Amino acid sequence: MPPFFVAPFSRIFIPMKQQLKVIKIGGNVVDDPQELARFLRDFASLAGPKVLVHGGGKVATAVARGLGVEARMIDGRRVTDAQTLQIVTMVYAGLINKQLVAQLQALGCNALGLCGADGGLVTAHRRAVTPAGVDYGFVGDPAAFHAPTALTLLGGGLTPVVAPITGDGAGGLLNTNADTMAQYVAVGLAGTGQYAVELIYCFEKPGVLRDVEDPGSVIPRIDPSLYAELKRDGIVSAGMLPKLDNAFAAIASGVDHVVICAAGNLCLPGYNGTTLCR
Amino acid sequence: MPPFFVAPFSRIFIPMKQQLKVIKIGGNVVDDPQELARFLRDFASLAGPKVLVHGGGKVATAVARGLGVEARMIDGRRVTDAQTLQIVTMVYAGLINKQLVAQLQALGCNALGLCGADGGLVTAHRRAVTPAGVDYGFVGDPAAFHAPTALTLLGGGLTPVVAPITGDGAGGLLNTNADTMAQYVAVGLAGTGQYAVELIYCFEKPGVLRDVEDPGSVIPRIDPSLYAELKRDGIVSAGMLPKLDNAFAAIASGVDHVVICAAGNLCLPGYNGTTLCR
Repeated sequence: MPPFFVAPFSRIFIPMKQQLKVIKIGGNVVDDPQELARFLRDFASLAGPKVLVHGGGKVATAVARGLGVEARMIDGRRVTDAQTLQIVTMVYAGLINKQLVAQLQALGCNALGLCGADGGLVTAHRRAVTPAGVDYGFVGDPAAFHAPTALTLLGGGLTPVVAPITGDGAGGLLNTNADTMAQYVAVGLAGTGQYAVELIYCFEKPGVLRDVEDPGSVIPRIDPSLYAELKRDGIVSAGMLPKLDNAFAAIASGVDHVVICAAGNLCLPGYNGTTLCR
Repeated sequence: MPPFFVAPFSRIFIPMKQQLKVIKIGGNVVDDPQELARFLRDFASLAGPKVLVHGGGKVATAVARGLGVEARMIDGRRVTDAQTLQIVTMVYAGLINKQLVAQLQALGCNALGLCGADGGLVTAHRRAVTPAGVDYGFVGDPAAFHAPTALTLLGGGLTPVVAPITGDGAGGLLNTNADTMAQYVAVGLAGTGQYAVELIYCFEKPGVLRDVEDPGSVIPRIDPSLYAELKRDGIVSAGMLPKLDNAFAAIASGVDHVVICAAGNLCLPGYNGTTLCR
């Protein structure tokens, strides 16, 4: 058959991307055994490929205190000295990560725990000292995503459970913000072209609220023009701005949409939360 | 072509098994930064698929002491209460595992760290209380190997780095002897039929010695009949007996051969050690 007969048909065929969820939980879920158990049951029940990214929690602070290492915070971020790096590596990539994996396995979810260093999944650069002279220590900002590792795991039917520790590519480890980690993994997976990626942030509140005092005032859907409006009218709180800016940046970088919802609403339609979209 | 022409040829074809190394290092290597760096350089340089299984080290004892948890030993084995389980999970599956992975990544080895719970690699049964009433606590003896997880990782060109913590299949974690873990992983991989598995125990001594006082008296090769002889003549020390019994059990279960050598001899011909074979 001459090629001009074949070409139009092959051009019509657009392979469907598979839906994939990247879900981030923070310390507030990790620290609450009942909420965590409920979340993990819901997470395990979600169909299709998925990735869990988890933050730390009070355990790291408790271990640090026990070992006599004082936690130091600048602008709400932990300053990571060498001892603190060892502690967060132990607690995030060891204790919490393996507890989550063991519980998910018992729920029939084939979880495999890793941190950014494993399989070179996320390599980070150590954050430079700020112009004001602030040194965050062993803190890393993601700089490279190694897609083959993620594709190998997902292709093998495994559910990656990712701790917010990264490798620096030179043999060292770095402490990395879990929200940033989730965003970086989601953008990286979208970049493979194989998945339509939904990034879900489980949050203390059920979503973006019109009235901070009213949990019933969740805005179900925000696109860039509504976002501009909400910012102009001062409806989005200052604390929420960086989260939403990052979410829209993720969407601009290929993530299909971003959801902000409560950990307990994972199995509800639309997560009873806020969907940020193009 | 009629089938009787094809069948004889397809019967002649026996697929070659790929060589795979399972290498175990103990706390003595983990605790010595220089020896560890040398070992990891050698390990990274080994061609072909490979798995690293590592033990603990002094860090777990130091962390336990720092947190005021007293280490309790019975017959040279750590008794694992709930707090100790948390500590070994943190230190083995978190700190040591991720430090090894980060260093191997920097050496160009695509390492991925996991414990037995991850991907259900090794599920264990909690050890029963002995007839004498000894309760080892949260200690697990391997009971199931999930080959698909190992094959997914190895097939993706990843080098598994395995910490001696297992899942109990019911959401809990268990502390598992690293020698046992290495043996179980080696037997499990041999059982897939895809690999000719070489199990290498890195040891404080260069191998099985004819004269315990003379490191130059390494017996290069022991088969079951020589082993019976050495035992009969009292040449193998009492401490070495369980190690060798386990090694021959692994060989009887499908492992190609077992090597006992010094961590520093990984790149020498025959590892300058003792090879136990059929």
